[in-house]
Amino acid sequence: MTHVELPTPALVIDAEKVRRNLRRMAEYAAAHGLKLRPHTKTHKSVMLGRMQTEIGGAAGLTVAKAGEAAVMIDACDDLLIAYPTVDRLRCEAVAELAARKTVCVGLDSAAAVEALSAAATSAGSTVGVLVELDVGMHRVGVQSPQAAVALAQKVARAPALPFAGLMFYPGHIGTKPDEQTAPLAAVEAMLGETLDLLRRGGLEARIVSGGSTPTAMRSHLVRGLTEIRPGTYIFNDMNCVRGGFAALDDCAARVVCTVVSDVVPGQVVIDAGTKTLTSDRCGPAPDSGHGHVVEYPAAKITRLTEEHGQVDVSGCDRVPKVGDQVTVIPNHICPCVNLQDRVYWQELGEAPRPLTVDARGRVF
Amino acid sequence: MTHVELPTPALVIDAEKVRRNLRRMAEYAAAHGLKLRPHTKTHKSVMLGRMQTEIGGAAGLTVAKAGEAAVMIDACDDLLIAYPTVDRLRCEAVAELAARKTVCVGLDSAAAVEALSAAATSAGSTVGVLVELDVGMHRVGVQSPQAAVALAQKVARAPALPFAGLMFYPGHIGTKPDEQTAPLAAVEAMLGETLDLLRRGGLEARIVSGGSTPTAMRSHLVRGLTEIRPGTYIFNDMNCVRGGFAALDDCAARVVCTVVSDVVPGQVVIDAGTKTLTSDRCGPAPDSGHGHVVEYPAAKITRLTEEHGQVDVSGCDRVPKVGDQVTVIPNHICPCVNLQDRVYWQELGEAPRPLTVDARGRVF
Repeated sequence: MTHVELPTPALVIDAEKVRRNLRRMAEYAAAHGLKLRPHTKTHKSVMLGRMQTEIGGAAGLTVAKAGEAAVMIDACDDLLIAYPTVDRLRCEAVAELAARKTVCVGLDSAAAVEALSAAATSAGSTVGVLVELDVGMHRVGVQSPQAAVALAQKVARAPALPFAGLMFYPGHIGTKPDEQTAPLAAVEAMLGETLDLLRRGGLEARIVSGGSTPTAMRSHLVRGLTEIRPGTYIFNDMNCVRGGFAALDDCAARVVCTVVSDVVPGQVVIDAGTKTLTSDRCGPAPDSGHGHVVEYPAAKITRLTEEHGQVDVSGCDRVPKVGDQVTVIPNHICPCVNLQDRVYWQELGEAPRPLTVDARGRVF
Repeated sequence: MTHVELPTPALVIDAEKVRRNLRRMAEYAAAHGLKLRPHTKTHKSVMLGRMQTEIGGAAGLTVAKAGEAAVMIDACDDLLIAYPTVDRLRCEAVAELAARKTVCVGLDSAAAVEALSAAATSAGSTVGVLVELDVGMHRVGVQSPQAAVALAQKVARAPALPFAGLMFYPGHIGTKPDEQTAPLAAVEAMLGETLDLLRRGGLEARIVSGGSTPTAMRSHLVRGLTEIRPGTYIFNDMNCVRGGFAALDDCAARVVCTVVSDVVPGQVVIDAGTKTLTSDRCGPAPDSGHGHVVEYPAAKITRLTEEHGQVDVSGCDRVPKVGDQVTVIPNHICPCVNLQDRVYWQELGEAPRPLTVDARGRVF
């Protein structure tokens, strides 16, 4: 890459690639009549949330936590908190936001229904509820269509909590199309039975929300789905590339690093360790190292400590020297963005502009 | 633990344990005539940096990056940046700080010497230089006593860069005493030869800086050492406990989490995932899960995604329910602190007080 004089490690975002990634998903969703509700955990930026609604075809946005919701409510009129709110503080925070905009929460327990209903009643707001189904990831989500309907009925009876529909997260499904057919059929079976039982019980699931970036482009195969919530697609990363659903050229967010040492034979050290790249391994290729070095594709980032990235360059025909910059595409971009106070927005031919990561660090 | 109404996940620091950990290391260093220069990367707090100098026996402090130095310069008069500064922006930042306080940098390349000398000359300051030795970790550090002396001579000739001594990081050395004897002897051999060669060349290593938390209490076995730079000891973590050099009761920093789901049989889900606990595995026990659940010692945190911690409670005789709080001691506390805007300082019998993580996210 062109040498840019930024304090490194610097996370630089290619504006044109972002727009292309947004357009591609918008076109897919529109072609299949699916609503698009991107998960903003990937970028955590109000500017990019607005871009998703304005040019990216988004009908609403998704967040994980109440703290992120408090930021992203400025970027849209319709927000889904895809995470159970069960404690008083979090339920109160969500109920207050719901007085300003349309807010839905995904949940899977009677305790969450009770806590959220109390908070919304007290705030004088209404919070839509999606009942979360476990479609195979075994993380959260009710375990059967019968349990989903029982919880939906509890929601429908609870003050201030209109039942809005169902959600699920197919994060267990393989990234390759041939790994997806059977699991997607299982998702559809559970969903179909749940929707049937709901209808018989007089409940309508207005929203049926699913989809992750790996499975996004096969969402039209799941009958009953009304919306998808991909996140990573805005930037892509080595999980996407090695999983086979993005090209290197689609990776819009890259870390510009400086080589700080080259004294160990066959190795250079970059100024990006786990405090920049995280310890997240590449899901589809756990032994591929800690990211891809764009200018030295034969290099391998073999080991990270907090501030050091050890890069094996023994297989390279040329090697960078101390002070040189190299560009790394991370394994998993979402937590990398969360580690930066600001990233840099790069329009073609212009100097990179700082872009605040507004919802960084909102663990609450 | 007592239920505290904090927005969870909340990193709560036990003040009395901190003071005890600080006193213990101060007593060890004093007993062996070693200077103590704690690495502040663990806490990133000016208040705690000051506490280390005021009651913790510290003669100075250590940081990793220029951005951390800009914060910690307010906590002491003598700062070591234990990281090579090679690019113009970082060298300029360090040279400016060196006009205000005593600042040393550890480095291992001629390029770093040249860049730093130019910046210090331009700023009208002097920056002390420690030549870094690779004593076996093979990350950074010159590869031989001869290379160390050649670089020290280059430093001594460079304008504005007084040669101050040597540094090394023994992070490769095992945590158990019986894993330490041979590597410590190798460290001492390389150090001894380097010091001999330096003396013959007319150069004095006023500072010989080493030590990590695992090896700290055996530092007196390395002849020639003048100071140690432990970091984690202020809080300790599961790396320390499972490595055998701290007890659970010494772990001063713990994450209070809320149980948000319990629908998958044998499992509860806490509101702390990699965005709170990181993906760092436990070095001495990689299969022990992602931290220790204090109230449920038979529980195992088997899987983390960004906001979810999946806890296997199938081996527990009782299980927490949705809305309950549990307390987790992380595998590696340093990067967990870096993920929080604020932690909570807990004096016995008082309400937890927010404590800003001043140097959080200083990747530069």
